[in-house]
Amino acid sequence: MIDELDPIGEWLSGTGPESDIVISTRIRLARNVAGYPFLTRIKEDQRSHLERTLGERIAVAGVADRLIYANLNKTTPLERECLVERHLISKDLASARGERGVALEPRGTLSIMVNEEDHLRIQVLRSGFQPDAAWEQISAVDRRLEERVEYAFSPRFGYLTSCPTNVGTGMRVSMMLHLPALVMTKQIEKVFHAVAKVSLAVRGFYGEGTHALGDFYQISNQVTLGPSEEQILRTIADYVPQIIKFERNVRETLINENRVGLEDRVWRAFGMLERARLITSEETLDYLSAVRMGVNLGLIDRIPISAVNELFLLTQPAHLQQLNGRELDTPERDENRAEYVRRRLASLN
Amino acid sequence: MIDELDPIGEWLSGTGPESDIVISTRIRLARNVAGYPFLTRIKEDQRSHLERTLGERIAVAGVADRLIYANLNKTTPLERECLVERHLISKDLASARGERGVALEPRGTLSIMVNEEDHLRIQVLRSGFQPDAAWEQISAVDRRLEERVEYAFSPRFGYLTSCPTNVGTGMRVSMMLHLPALVMTKQIEKVFHAVAKVSLAVRGFYGEGTHALGDFYQISNQVTLGPSEEQILRTIADYVPQIIKFERNVRETLINENRVGLEDRVWRAFGMLERARLITSEETLDYLSAVRMGVNLGLIDRIPISAVNELFLLTQPAHLQQLNGRELDTPERDENRAEYVRRRLASLN
Repeated sequence: MIDELDPIGEWLSGTGPESDIVISTRIRLARNVAGYPFLTRIKEDQRSHLERTLGERIAVAGVADRLIYANLNKTTPLERECLVERHLISKDLASARGERGVALEPRGTLSIMVNEEDHLRIQVLRSGFQPDAAWEQISAVDRRLEERVEYAFSPRFGYLTSCPTNVGTGMRVSMMLHLPALVMTKQIEKVFHAVAKVSLAVRGFYGEGTHALGDFYQISNQVTLGPSEEQILRTIADYVPQIIKFERNVRETLINENRVGLEDRVWRAFGMLERARLITSEETLDYLSAVRMGVNLGLIDRIPISAVNELFLLTQPAHLQQLNGRELDTPERDENRAEYVRRRLASLN
Repeated sequence: MIDELDPIGEWLSGTGPESDIVISTRIRLARNVAGYPFLTRIKEDQRSHLERTLGERIAVAGVADRLIYANLNKTTPLERECLVERHLISKDLASARGERGVALEPRGTLSIMVNEEDHLRIQVLRSGFQPDAAWEQISAVDRRLEERVEYAFSPRFGYLTSCPTNVGTGMRVSMMLHLPALVMTKQIEKVFHAVAKVSLAVRGFYGEGTHALGDFYQISNQVTLGPSEEQILRTIADYVPQIIKFERNVRETLINENRVGLEDRVWRAFGMLERARLITSEETLDYLSAVRMGVNLGLIDRIPISAVNELFLLTQPAHLQQLNGRELDTPERDENRAEYVRRRLASLN
């Protein structure tokens, strides 16, 4: 099914607003079907029935121009890992057992997971800073689905979810930010503290703590019960521009005060990517992060930002193996990754 | 006077025997003039007189086809530093005060220091493993000088020198070895222990201890009194080939057992040299060392070994400033060095 999707997808195209710093805007809604137990207590036959009927209903709900549905039991572990790397399904859904599926819009802007933690997890993922467009899109999808699926809803609590932390709106808004200058100048901790005060959470690209791979940080809401969807959205949409400004100011200061030092950092990273013969995915992310900033600041002009974004994705373990058409062990991957990056950069020169 | 010398000189040409591992063979003889006090006790007018008359006698002794003589007080500190970087004069002679000089054969194979620690320090410096050619050359020079200068000589002790550690033959033979594989595999300590047992000494490129800059090590005799010149020469000339063999075996093992790992190391070093915007001379030496091994092992074929050798010399602080025609502070040098290396490598591609 992976080959039915766009090779890179919309969110990594780097075309959205503020995309020098904001990689993507993501909204997800947790929904459950009335009359069925939550997945923690569901019986196998009910689970199968849900997977099948929800798959069918999503398919005809008209939520996107084109939609690909896959029962994940009929996909390979490698395909599922690719979907995780594209942020289209969760790690939990990839590794779970039992009947479960995902419906995907080919550019990856919409994915609807079936039988993840909740019966339905609707996700909209858009390039750059697009809270309103993402919200508009996911609201429409949610309304269309509700026409065909009766949601578990309490007038008092709102949408009912398997885990109480999602009850109410069932909504999580998150923005993926690229903050290399704040990391470089050790000011990222300030963002952590400030964000916590407005009840937002910060995590790394793949959920790590303070040192995020590739200097990518996800800012998301922690509270789902109480504020309305619009209020949750506004909290993030109003706060993130302050972080963007902070990162931009630090980049400008770095350029003004130590342009050569910054160029050195950026170009050394480029040199490593060009020349290494063995490279881990973590190291690749770190160097690509520096290069990404370099391209966005005009310090490197020989490659387009789209190529950098593409490398972020295609050098991840599952995509690398997908490109090779076979499984590779870690040393093989490190060698293969180095070769792939080297050729790609050489082809752009 | 620097511009009267060959730009690189013979010893860095990389053309001598075993020059993948042996950079150079050096012999120096310490000599003093009979009837004059050693320099520790000499009076200023005697010192001046010595400098003048020795300069004149060396000039007419017929010790080389062409010879350039300089009174070092008439050179700039930068010129003297360049001579140190070429290993043509000692650091002590460069920074000393008082009348002192040096006679140089333009390719740097012969240098005769006047009023260093001894009245005369004759040095022959040849590319690669050339103990016999170097010995032949320096013996001839020594004989020619002795025709015009009466040496301080004791039938019992041999040549008399300012410091007792040089008495007897006044001879030090040293070979500069490039041992990156032994350093990489942490086997260099074995060389240290083995060499000490045969009364040879090991030092770094510029006299450092166990971690030598650029993985260059000088092996030299410690004893000057007792054994004859020929015996001293043979001790080194017989021992060094064992170290050469050791280094070659380790390189071969590295290639056979982990070729990609070795290529990775070598090419990353190359990438850093190609792309850095700021680079210290120490870092440059380290990367050039890896690249030198890579070229000698055929892992890198886009640059000749002569270009690598040239970079070793021309990226040193004094040569860099000489190239620029002006003094540069450390940050300027680091930037300038990176630019020079980058352009040089790009010109070879």
